[in-house]
Amino acid sequence: MRADAFQNILSDLNGTSADIEASAVISSDGLMMAALLPSNVDEDRVGAMSAAMLSLGDRTARELSRGSLDQVLIKGEKGYVLMVQAGGDAVLTVMAKPSSKLGLVFLDVRRAADALAKILN
Amino acid sequence: MRADAFQNILSDLNGTSADIEASAVISSDGLMMAALLPSNVDEDRVGAMSAAMLSLGDRTARELSRGSLDQVLIKGEKGYVLMVQAGGDAVLTVMAKPSSKLGLVFLDVRRAADALAKILN
Repeated sequence: MRADAFQNILSDLNGTSADIEASAVISSDGLMMAALLPSNVDEDRVGAMSAAMLSLGDRTARELSRGSLDQVLIKGEKGYVLMVQAGGDAVLTVMAKPSSKLGLVFLDVRRAADALAKILN
Repeated sequence: MRADAFQNILSDLNGTSADIEASAVISSDGLMMAALLPSNVDEDRVGAMSAAMLSLGDRTARELSRGSLDQVLIKGEKGYVLMVQAGGDAVLTVMAKPSSKLGLVFLDVRRAADALAKILN
């Protein structure tokens, strides 16, 4: 089951690092494919904001000659949101603590995104 | 002159690191305050995309309980765009090479943004 495989990848990712609070796989049009979110985080909201950020991020990257989009990182005073392309049709969105070791989070999320892309292709 | 002070901070920033290709200070509504951009980069485009990304980034950070926005990083296959709040009314946008040492870029850009914020307040 593909849904189970997605869920396993998200479980592994959230388990790898105490810095990672939540993760979700979202289609390019903002629909949820799999999610491991705390109960106070709304799935639809994560999907909608991820799709909007990815769309504008892609346009910004192209307009400013940065090529096609690979990832978007948002840093707020209470933590990070990281969105990484998982193949051409999906994005992996991760929420992380403000004290996160970003280098490790980037590495773990990139690996999970590659694993998701393999299943999707 | 405030404009000269802005320009000096941008010159210092671009000179600090060979990774940094361009930088600009933009008001919260997307208007250019100072810029040090290569001739092939359009000022208005940088201003417009920065304001749009900051606005959506702020909304995303709030909707996903990340608090108020501090910075947005976009990674494209041909390089980075980093946008950092410089006080409440301006943003420092920096374009960097794909091979950039991100930790150093973050540090230099944060320092420049703090220096800009001091002049603006």
